Amino acid sequence: MCGIVGIADAGGVSFSLYSALYALQHRGQESAGIATFDGAVLHKHKGQGLVSEVFDESLLASLEGSVGVGHVRYPTTGEKIPENIQPFNFRFRGKNIAVTHNGNLTNTADLKETFEKRGQIFCTTTDTEVIGNLIADELRISGGMEDAVLHCMRILKGSYSVVVMLDDVIWAFRDPLGIRPLCVGKLPNGHIVCSESVAVDALNGTFIRDVRPGELVRIDATGITFRQIAVADHPAHCVFEYIYFARADSVVDGRLVYDVRRHIGQALSENETICADLVSPVPDSGIAHAIGYSEASKIPYREGLIKNRYMGRTFIMPTQEARENAVRIKLNPVKGHVLDKSVVLVDDSIVRGTTSRRIIGLMREAGAAEVHMRIGSPALKAPCYLGVDMPTRKELIASDKSNEEVRKSIGASSLRHVSIEALISAIGMDKNDLCVGCLTGVYPLAIGCEQCSRRRVELIGGTYQSNLGVFKEVSEARTSTK
Amino acid sequence: MCGIVGIADAGGVSFSLYSALYALQHRGQESAGIATFDGAVLHKHKGQGLVSEVFDESLLASLEGSVGVGHVRYPTTGEKIPENIQPFNFRFRGKNIAVTHNGNLTNTADLKETFEKRGQIFCTTTDTEVIGNLIADELRISGGMEDAVLHCMRILKGSYSVVVMLDDVIWAFRDPLGIRPLCVGKLPNGHIVCSESVAVDALNGTFIRDVRPGELVRIDATGITFRQIAVADHPAHCVFEYIYFARADSVVDGRLVYDVRRHIGQALSENETICADLVSPVPDSGIAHAIGYSEASKIPYREGLIKNRYMGRTFIMPTQEARENAVRIKLNPVKGHVLDKSVVLVDDSIVRGTTSRRIIGLMREAGAAEVHMRIGSPALKAPCYLGVDMPTRKELIASDKSNEEVRKSIGASSLRHVSIEALISAIGMDKNDLCVGCLTGVYPLAIGCEQCSRRRVELIGGTYQSNLGVFKEVSEARTSTK
Amino acid sequence: MCGIVGIADAGGVSFSLYSALYALQHRGQESAGIATFDGAVLHKHKGQGLVSEVFDESLLASLEGSVGVGHVRYPTTGEKIPENIQPFNFRFRGKNIAVTHNGNLTNTADLKETFEKRGQIFCTTTDTEVIGNLIADELRISGGMEDAVLHCMRILKGSYSVVVMLDDVIWAFRDPLGIRPLCVGKLPNGHIVCSESVAVDALNGTFIRDVRPGELVRIDATGITFRQIAVADHPAHCVFEYIYFARADSVVDGRLVYDVRRHIGQALSENETICADLVSPVPDSGIAHAIGYSEASKIPYREGLIKNRYMGRTFIMPTQEARENAVRIKLNPVKGHVLDKSVVLVDDSIVRGTTSRRIIGLMREAGAAEVHMRIGSPALKAPCYLGVDMPTRKELIASDKSNEEVRKSIGASSLRHVSIEALISAIGMDKNDLCVGCLTGVYPLAIGCEQCSRRRVELIGGTYQSNLGVFKEVSEARTSTK
Amino acid sequence: MCGIVGIADAGGVSFSLYSALYALQHRGQESAGIATFDGAVLHKHKGQGLVSEVFDESLLASLEGSVGVGHVRYPTTGEKIPENIQPFNFRFRGKNIAVTHNGNLTNTADLKETFEKRGQIFCTTTDTEVIGNLIADELRISGGMEDAVLHCMRILKGSYSVVVMLDDVIWAFRDPLGIRPLCVGKLPNGHIVCSESVAVDALNGTFIRDVRPGELVRIDATGITFRQIAVADHPAHCVFEYIYFARADSVVDGRLVYDVRRHIGQALSENETICADLVSPVPDSGIAHAIGYSEASKIPYREGLIKNRYMGRTFIMPTQEARENAVRIKLNPVKGHVLDKSVVLVDDSIVRGTTSRRIIGLMREAGAAEVHMRIGSPALKAPCYLGVDMPTRKELIASDKSNEEVRKSIGASSLRHVSIEALISAIGMDKNDLCVGCLTGVYPLAIGCEQCSRRRVELIGGTYQSNLGVFKEVSEARTSTK
Repeated sequence: MCGIVGIADAGGVSFSLYSALYALQHRGQESAGIATFDGAVLHKHKGQGLVSEVFDESLLASLEGSVGVGHVRYPTTGEKIPENIQPFNFRFRGKNIAVTHNGNLTNTADLKETFEKRGQIFCTTTDTEVIGNLIADELRISGGMEDAVLHCMRILKGSYSVVVMLDDVIWAFRDPLGIRPLCVGKLPNGHIVCSESVAVDALNGTFIRDVRPGELVRIDATGITFRQIAVADHPAHCVFEYIYFARADSVVDGRLVYDVRRHIGQALSENETICADLVSPVPDSGIAHAIGYSEASKIPYREGLIKNRYMGRTFIMPTQEARENAVRIKLNPVKGHVLDKSVVLVDDSIVRGTTSRRIIGLMREAGAAEVHMRIGSPALKAPCYLGVDMPTRKELIASDKSNEEVRKSIGASSLRHVSIEALISAIGMDKNDLCVGCLTGVYPLAIGCEQCSRRRVELIGGTYQSNLGVFKEVSEARTSTK
Repeated sequence: MCGIVGIADAGGVSFSLYSALYALQHRGQESAGIATFDGAVLHKHKGQGLVSEVFDESLLASLEGSVGVGHVRYPTTGEKIPENIQPFNFRFRGKNIAVTHNGNLTNTADLKETFEKRGQIFCTTTDTEVIGNLIADELRISGGMEDAVLHCMRILKGSYSVVVMLDDVIWAFRDPLGIRPLCVGKLPNGHIVCSESVAVDALNGTFIRDVRPGELVRIDATGITFRQIAVADHPAHCVFEYIYFARADSVVDGRLVYDVRRHIGQALSENETICADLVSPVPDSGIAHAIGYSEASKIPYREGLIKNRYMGRTFIMPTQEARENAVRIKLNPVKGHVLDKSVVLVDDSIVRGTTSRRIIGLMREAGAAEVHMRIGSPALKAPCYLGVDMPTRKELIASDKSNEEVRKSIGASSLRHVSIEALISAIGMDKNDLCVGCLTGVYPLAIGCEQCSRRRVELIGGTYQSNLGVFKEVSEARTSTK
Repeated sequence: MCGIVGIADAGGVSFSLYSALYALQHRGQESAGIATFDGAVLHKHKGQGLVSEVFDESLLASLEGSVGVGHVRYPTTGEKIPENIQPFNFRFRGKNIAVTHNGNLTNTADLKETFEKRGQIFCTTTDTEVIGNLIADELRISGGMEDAVLHCMRILKGSYSVVVMLDDVIWAFRDPLGIRPLCVGKLPNGHIVCSESVAVDALNGTFIRDVRPGELVRIDATGITFRQIAVADHPAHCVFEYIYFARADSVVDGRLVYDVRRHIGQALSENETICADLVSPVPDSGIAHAIGYSEASKIPYREGLIKNRYMGRTFIMPTQEARENAVRIKLNPVKGHVLDKSVVLVDDSIVRGTTSRRIIGLMREAGAAEVHMRIGSPALKAPCYLGVDMPTRKELIASDKSNEEVRKSIGASSLRHVSIEALISAIGMDKNDLCVGCLTGVYPLAIGCEQCSRRRVELIGGTYQSNLGVFKEVSEARTSTK
Repeated sequence: MCGIVGIADAGGVSFSLYSALYALQHRGQESAGIATFDGAVLHKHKGQGLVSEVFDESLLASLEGSVGVGHVRYPTTGEKIPENIQPFNFRFRGKNIAVTHNGNLTNTADLKETFEKRGQIFCTTTDTEVIGNLIADELRISGGMEDAVLHCMRILKGSYSVVVMLDDVIWAFRDPLGIRPLCVGKLPNGHIVCSESVAVDALNGTFIRDVRPGELVRIDATGITFRQIAVADHPAHCVFEYIYFARADSVVDGRLVYDVRRHIGQALSENETICADLVSPVPDSGIAHAIGYSEASKIPYREGLIKNRYMGRTFIMPTQEARENAVRIKLNPVKGHVLDKSVVLVDDSIVRGTTSRRIIGLMREAGAAEVHMRIGSPALKAPCYLGVDMPTRKELIASDKSNEEVRKSIGASSLRHVSIEALISAIGMDKNDLCVGCLTGVYPLAIGCEQCSRRRVELIGGTYQSNLGVFKEVSEARTSTK
């Protein structure tokens, strides 16, 4: 997962991009980068670590220009090599280009092979370089980003919210299914396009609206324009953004994430028969769900676990055993709250079950009489191929275990997940407009042998006429041109 | 303010000290240090920054030994010079000594002058070096730490919880008024003495008890022993530890801090006449108070401000104006929660008023109809000389302003502080056993021209016979020997 | 200018590559990099700075594999961007490739344009990526490095000594004119190909021979093989390697550099009419020439300037004036040697004249009666387009000034350069086998509007049959196929 | 060994101190530090590493003030702890003091014990803190630096050149025997006192003269004054400064070091019976000696070993064997010069013999027929207690071996050292004015059980009247008061 942002602002963009990346830091902590264009030269700085670690004042001051893009990257299991840090930038026939991407392509290998057949080499192992090549490939023929994005939407499979700087213009587009979020805002002296609305808030801007699935946005000194490039019969917004990934204070595709989570918590409390003394979140991911649960159930909200606010990303211990025990440095159970009490413990999801098992263990060691685990997502049954870093099916504890088996495995007194229906109701969209692949194993586009509830996508726009030959075999699998 | 810890553990102490300092990181973020003794050599490492920044695995592995002390230091306005980073260590007549100190002496200048009169120089600008000198001064005559601590308790004025490593023994003592916290715990293979019980929890230890005011603790491979060195008629535990400083999950002098804060919140909700839609904390310091308020008032608890969990200690902005606006990178108001709503906003205290003013501004810009500020401490009227880094009287907004003047200044719809009585009741101690200097301007010991409600302290122990001459004039001001 | 190396050694290569780069450090101090291949994975590390700054023990230990390549890069005026640090590595159709290059192509822009015409993008601004693309372009068709190198020799214009790692084989080739040096050596357990023989010495290896112009070398676990790919009627070895660039203890194309310089110094002393007290080198570049001068002239060799051995690459001064005066921190005249003396001062070359002027100034301030400047190269009249970082014609002081004008400008008592004939005689080769472009303005291949004494190059090898179409227009300018 | 410097210059001193330390870097590479005083505040920065690594421009710009002192420290085997980095600075009774010291005290332990008896603690393990304490001890009584230095000269045993900043005045003094060098110079806007004259040269200053043994210098904005504090019947200048330690271009106690070494080389060539082809130095320490040898013997001077100019202080190798072989990365024999030749190899000294053995091995592997080792010092027979970091007597190869045994051990064809008489003659002083302890085992002051050729020292100055009592037993051992 990643966070992306593009800004056009006559007063300079580097400090604004930095602030926006700060607001999007939860979407990626492995690396960060910014590229700006000052009318003549592309400036950039990228590095491994948090935004606060990668940039300093003199670096930001040196990133001159009135347009720019930024990126934060998630520590996926893949290759943490310096070349992969985004923005991915290059010069092509006199133009300076920087590409940032949030999402995951499912046909990267095919596309790379097609390019390599004509002798092309790839300097990184990212999807983003493939997108950069596709754009360059089309720019050389038609010269325009509209056509290049049409080309992308014809060719690319998977999820992709993309922000591109092409000399002094910012272009942004969202895949036709709108899987990953993307929105635009008005700044005092310009415009911003970014993964989540919190980045607009951070700059004291005004939220305009979400970018529509299949839509292309153009931002520069003169303002903002929109153009629909492709239309799907149904979008496939990722439910996991609401459950866990997006910040609680973001508004994603029209819904305040905090309220979705609070409503999930309320739904979880319905039909409860247990009689608990307190509701406690697993911090920080379960807080909004737990508040909702407490509100609906009238069971007092009280923190049973206190999180250490100073945990660096590395906590050093000499042995594996010591590292595992270190959970109590990170999360300290409040004995005075849980001793001899029946606790409803609320978390957003269970992935491998390891963390839940440790936390419930902590609560029991602290004297909790009962630990009732309530989960703000349905059971995770299948992997995500569309941008959320989730383990394989085999590692997902619920993929082949019943609820009772999971309960025993994690040691809870009782275990309940929210139902898919209640989740969808809390989000407030039509079920067909969401991607629930990780919950059902049915994905909104064809991925290998997985089941698929395919959307129909139509491309819009008459100027498109270019290098179909090269990629014909790839593109037909998924799109049709009006 | 600082956090201190000492550990004796036959299995090695450096990783345990590191974990304990992690748990005490909230008590000081400027610098950190560890010193250990391996039977022959004192090992140490100190540096500026967070515990996670100062230490790495190879450093910790090199800090060998079965006893050690650690320290985290608060960014006071004073001198951030490398020499001042603790532990303060030195060799004296063949012994290796490392001293860590939490608190503030009020007679440092006098003591330094006395020492300088006999030709002594000071390498640091800390109180801790003075304590080190006093200990050495006495060790040279009587040779024992009991006498040295008796000497300290005779001479030192102010607050001091101290942990000393003297070769292979850990000694710890707390000033006769018990102003700063200190407690001891049993570890699987040893013992720990530390500022707060969360450090015992972090090591999966068992809390034994608080160190008594005026008490000396001795820890080594053979176990733990206690000895009372001085007794005061009343202690003077700092109320600000409960209001703000200590971690919510710590038990300080017998009280779970979280519950004290929750009870303060409950007390704040009594006799309210306003009709609010939600109770929101200022994160993170107002959370427990706000939960208590919500619980007692039945007004729903909902976060109106979301804190960015990734704020480094420096946030870079090119201008002062930009830096001030940066509060919205750190705290984002949740428009969906506060728009057109009447909000009870709960914080732990108001110091200069600047932060409250900005936060209330954020809430109003986000559309809050009313912002009722509720404060978990009585108005701060006077500075702290005893270890809390607080501004001068002039800078304290409540020192010369009425409640209504402060309300106007910060822009709240209404403003209420908890009363001193309610605070004391929430803590659950006798008023005479607490230091409320910052609330009343009356301190538990003589400090310059400030008012004083002096405690009577008696020194215990017959072996004491040493260098009274040198410090007689200093010591008589405060103690009497049986 | 750069230094390159490739090693195959069953016992591991990273520490050997590191030692070899140390020995080649004089060829480039801006950045350094190593790539190795362990049979499955390509490992690499690159960074800005000296070899000693870029690598540490754990990094080297992590660079596993029995083949590898390394590179040190010269601080050219061009783009110091991280992407440009070599080796340039990529994966192509399942193969791991790393390319290192010493030299300068003169048709990079043309080649890039050709590639961009078919939609290709470039991640770096180096010649090396172009070479990587050419190799990939050919590998995809014929699959073999022999053909790929034949393709390169057909297409590339300029100077290029190249070492490529293609999975577990090291391939190295030298342009048909042999402009930059390249040689091979036998190691205790493998083979090395490197820019200069000092790298063979550093590994206690045995020098085998120089790589022939137009020759391809293949090194792997099984041994070393050679294949002639192209043959020129005359090579064009760079004279500046002998004058300045190569290390004095290297043997380049059969000549010990130290002896070439000593013979230049001897030649300089012929027909002298001045009567000097001592001969002093400008350290370190003039030492061997000065020793030769002293030996032939019988004037005592004595250091009149002592170089500070601790000068970092940056010497900080607050103002430009202070920086210019800082020459005396770097070079200190020995007053006791030069006071009232007539000094013969020997340096390797004069570029802009700035340094000579400053040094002569230092000597005069120290009291030298006469400073007779003797230069180990003929006057530099024209720029180098083939890999030596030299200023433009305009900046070369001798390009438009007579010897007497230069003498006045630098303030010497007298000034003499070695003649081209004496230089060539000291090198001991045929004049037609050397590149003397910088001395005469006549280059061994066509470069823009410059004069050219073109060599005839014939390509060897029957299997070549591939993508001539694409690059036909480029290649015909320079080569013919038998 | 260390390098020290003090500067008073109305235009600011930090950049000048930095340049001076650069010039003195050969005297110490472990750490560096600067302290300045701006009339109100003492600024300082210290760190481990070379001057170029410890300071950057913003640090230097922040070291404000028109007086300051600096220090570079040698990597002795002792304690490399941050506290030990000089200048040693402290505040004492309102005054800011910074002390730098070159030399070694032989009664540190006694002095520390005396201070500890009165309860004093030491923060560092340096001699310098003892000197700081002595100065403070006296300042408190008499208030003046003249008396404090008189006190030091009465009490201190050993070698000590000291530069002290006391608020806005620089004080410097040299022990009564003048063991370590110290000199003063005039700068364009001020004055400098420093270990060697090269630091004066580096600042384009004018050398004034050496500080006399037992003399005190005072430098401030108003100028420079001198005062003789103690007078010895004979000084004891260290011969090793001439042989190895000082820079060749320094003038130490009236002698140009380069010329001393050249004369030593000339003396070495007398009465030679061997017939060699070339004279080669071991770079860099043997260069001046070898030039002298060549000049007198008429055997050509030619470098048989080329030193790698880029060796960092650490060269990484995975095994001890690999590290030992790494000598050939540092020093490369020039096969073309030495093959089948008889070589006179000149070095400054032989300590353990290890390096000589390796270098002679390199020469033989490179094909040298004969290697005649000529050494610019007499055989080292005894350790140095007075500031040169030399191994114990046991480790000195010549302490218990005959010349023939040493020759065999290092593998030379023949071995000759310069005689003590020739060394003294090359220096040009009276034998009684030099310290030749390391050559004869007879030292100029009493050190443990070593033999001693004691000097008589008289203290000058009537105002002295202070705390004789405290240190009487210590001081009587060495000085008498007129």
